[in-house]
Amino acid sequence: MIRKTIAVVLAYALAQTTSFSQTTVKEDFKPSTLNQPGQEYPQVNSQGYARFRIKAPKADSVRVSLGLGGKGGTLLSKSDDGFWVGTTGGPMDEGFHYYNVNIDGGKFNDPGAKNYYGSVRWESGIEIPAHDQDFYALKDVPHGHVQQVLFPSKSTNTSRRAFVYTPPGYEKESSKKYPVLYLQHGWGEDETAWSNQGHANLIMDNLIAEGKIKPFIIVMTYGMTNEVKMGGMRNFKIEPFQTVLVDELIPYVDTHFRTLTDRSNRAMAGLSMGGMETHTITLNKPEKFGSYGLLSGGLYTPEELKDQPKAKLIFISCGSKERPEAVKKAAEDLKKAGYNAVSYVSADTGHEFQTWRRSLHELAPLLFKN
Amino acid sequence: MIRKTIAVVLAYALAQTTSFSQTTVKEDFKPSTLNQPGQEYPQVNSQGYARFRIKAPKADSVRVSLGLGGKGGTLLSKSDDGFWVGTTGGPMDEGFHYYNVNIDGGKFNDPGAKNYYGSVRWESGIEIPAHDQDFYALKDVPHGHVQQVLFPSKSTNTSRRAFVYTPPGYEKESSKKYPVLYLQHGWGEDETAWSNQGHANLIMDNLIAEGKIKPFIIVMTYGMTNEVKMGGMRNFKIEPFQTVLVDELIPYVDTHFRTLTDRSNRAMAGLSMGGMETHTITLNKPEKFGSYGLLSGGLYTPEELKDQPKAKLIFISCGSKERPEAVKKAAEDLKKAGYNAVSYVSADTGHEFQTWRRSLHELAPLLFKN
Repeated sequence: MIRKTIAVVLAYALAQTTSFSQTTVKEDFKPSTLNQPGQEYPQVNSQGYARFRIKAPKADSVRVSLGLGGKGGTLLSKSDDGFWVGTTGGPMDEGFHYYNVNIDGGKFNDPGAKNYYGSVRWESGIEIPAHDQDFYALKDVPHGHVQQVLFPSKSTNTSRRAFVYTPPGYEKESSKKYPVLYLQHGWGEDETAWSNQGHANLIMDNLIAEGKIKPFIIVMTYGMTNEVKMGGMRNFKIEPFQTVLVDELIPYVDTHFRTLTDRSNRAMAGLSMGGMETHTITLNKPEKFGSYGLLSGGLYTPEELKDQPKAKLIFISCGSKERPEAVKKAAEDLKKAGYNAVSYVSADTGHEFQTWRRSLHELAPLLFKN
Repeated sequence: MIRKTIAVVLAYALAQTTSFSQTTVKEDFKPSTLNQPGQEYPQVNSQGYARFRIKAPKADSVRVSLGLGGKGGTLLSKSDDGFWVGTTGGPMDEGFHYYNVNIDGGKFNDPGAKNYYGSVRWESGIEIPAHDQDFYALKDVPHGHVQQVLFPSKSTNTSRRAFVYTPPGYEKESSKKYPVLYLQHGWGEDETAWSNQGHANLIMDNLIAEGKIKPFIIVMTYGMTNEVKMGGMRNFKIEPFQTVLVDELIPYVDTHFRTLTDRSNRAMAGLSMGGMETHTITLNKPEKFGSYGLLSGGLYTPEELKDQPKAKLIFISCGSKERPEAVKKAAEDLKKAGYNAVSYVSADTGHEFQTWRRSLHELAPLLFKN
């Protein structure tokens, strides 16, 4: 199921590379907001084109993995000053993209960009400003904290890391208890993804400041228990991670944070592979979770759910460049069968973080309603 | 003062490169503990030699910035399989080292290694196992949390980031208040350094588990307010950061965490540039801080302190390859003048994180004693 999804995603990604018409590239390029301090490149223009500039004076070939050049990237051209420069063959989708740089046959990161964990490695990241970027902007509002916790895991004989978002005011309202969303990353990512790439904490801070949601806690941990290499999904088994999540992490969170511990105040959601995990674990352990979210990560059918304790909410989403009709139909089928199901399709985005930022922004106000 | 220190440090670093005799390199290399998941290289052997292996099939020249080759690094040799391989010209000092890879004249990171913020960029990191690594090892003991906070800063018109270590048990002992150490990184680093490179949280967890210290909070924030490029120290002024630290961060911490807010329960320490900042800020604002720590970052003289409220503790340290005699003499002079001064010299280390991990491990048990 997961392999099939990856194949579908790749097919969509390839399809996107041919859909650009000839337009004039505007020369209003600015440094990407994800650049390392003081770095002028990579840059992005107002149309969403990205321009790269890499120093490698004696290299014979430099290619960037992003950018629609028809052969899996943008081939840079050598300047007289030792820098290689190139612009994507078309505008990129809004939001965050991973990429890397091929220098003479070896894969490296762009020294100008910050790094983000994806594809089982720390990749370069670039941000194409989105028309709706305000909802995840860092604003002058009260901010929650993101706590790194190291929780004991007997099943894996390790201390494992999770990040816990506590909403603004958590420290002060010392008797208040909060609902909890367990939120999973995708394949090749880790527990840093939802904060670093997804801005989950800023999405929550802004929704809370606008009075649009009831504050809740978010817990993000690593969704695998084995060492993963490229292609390693073949041997993926859910049980070891399910044990870590349900038998080890949930009890840790419930004893170290002020949580509401009944099913109706605990939700699970995930993107891509994290959605697959959510699907499986909520079906295996319906007594633990009351609301479910699949973000570009599979579907529920009424048949799967029929002998289960009823979910308070089922949220299913994807980007418009993925399989929006399947997502909408799944929610319709669930609604017809009497479930509180909601679908969401992110406009003009694919299997990338802009889809998931928007999905969290849509999901959060629906969670933990009475 | 800071520029002079950097010059001295560079002189020591250069001096180190010639001190290695010919020995047989043992073929017991293992992947560095800081490698990205599944990556076999870089590797380290039991003598402290490092070996690098970089894929760049069509490159003409690959050099690693670490490693005592006499020309500022280790020149790798091309293998038939498209990989470049090389071993340092001698054993490296124990502990953490930053490095980068020069591919055909451009500076990149090693795709095999994780990245750490230093030198105003995310650099590759490698760990040479130390004989005393147990004190910062991840163990099966209760772990404190490291909280990312975004605090409002009117003086810079931004939300600024800090990391706050709260000791194990902080959540449960809901009426207990804790002393606070403000702990600063060095030049070119940021607020991630003390946790990522320094393992400050694990050092504390282990000391607390052994009953060797009274638990306290550590606050780590970015020690500059301007955008810094290489060489940018020339225009560095302390006042803007002092305002952020004293007038904005301390009040935020004291309202969002359960802190003891009197001078005797607040300390400041820093490494290298962070020591210089500690020196200046504690002399400017002695009513705010009761204990001072300079880790490879300058000295106090009795003359500077004579009209000041008396410090409870003055801790001065460095590596044995830095200026140990100056550090010891400064503490002696302070003791003669009636101050509670302590010096510490880290054996066989230079201006690197192993010196500062050890310094924190020495400093922590001395802080906040009654």
